[in-house]
Amino acid sequence: MLTKEELPECPVATTVQLIGNKWKLLILRDLIYNGAQRFTDFVKTIPGISKKVLTDNLRALESDGLLEREVFAEVPPRVVYSLSDLGKTLKPILDAMFDWGTDYKNSL
Amino acid sequence: MLTKEELPECPVATTVQLIGNKWKLLILRDLIYNGAQRFTDFVKTIPGISKKVLTDNLRALESDGLLEREVFAEVPPRVVYSLSDLGKTLKPILDAMFDWGTDYKNSL
Repeated sequence: MLTKEELPECPVATTVQLIGNKWKLLILRDLIYNGAQRFTDFVKTIPGISKKVLTDNLRALESDGLLEREVFAEVPPRVVYSLSDLGKTLKPILDAMFDWGTDYKNSL
Repeated sequence: MLTKEELPECPVATTVQLIGNKWKLLILRDLIYNGAQRFTDFVKTIPGISKKVLTDNLRALESDGLLEREVFAEVPPRVVYSLSDLGKTLKPILDAMFDWGTDYKNSL
């Protein structure tokens, strides 16, 4: 988690710092609309993402407290990613993006 | 402008394709909350942006019909960037990011 001093003064810039790249936004989309996911689920639903970029962005979201990573002690071990309570509060942003994208496509 | 066929099926992915990087989001923030801007205004308010990256992102937003670029025939010529009508419809997304960033900072 970042401290208040490490964040920009502007609230929009704060949000952008935490989730403002295409990969994080698409990972959050999957978690918000489809629930908990496994690593291979993201690979399937996010075209063009490499395993390294996916790993880096999952780690950043986890380190910022937006998602949780749970490891189940099975053989082989099963890793499941889900939104934290803080991550769930991002839904209005994704909803606004969903609505805008829907209207935009309908206007074409 | 993109055609319907060039856009992802998912509405969120469509929005992400058009505005999903930190520079575009901060450019849109400036236009939405502060009105029309000149090139040097963005340089001042977006820390770390290079002139090349700013130019590239302004061109992409203009080419996607989200902003307008007006050149006034003065000496030296004055160039002013403002939101198009389509660009103005992005406000709910930026508002949701503003609200989330405000709440997040208050929670720290």
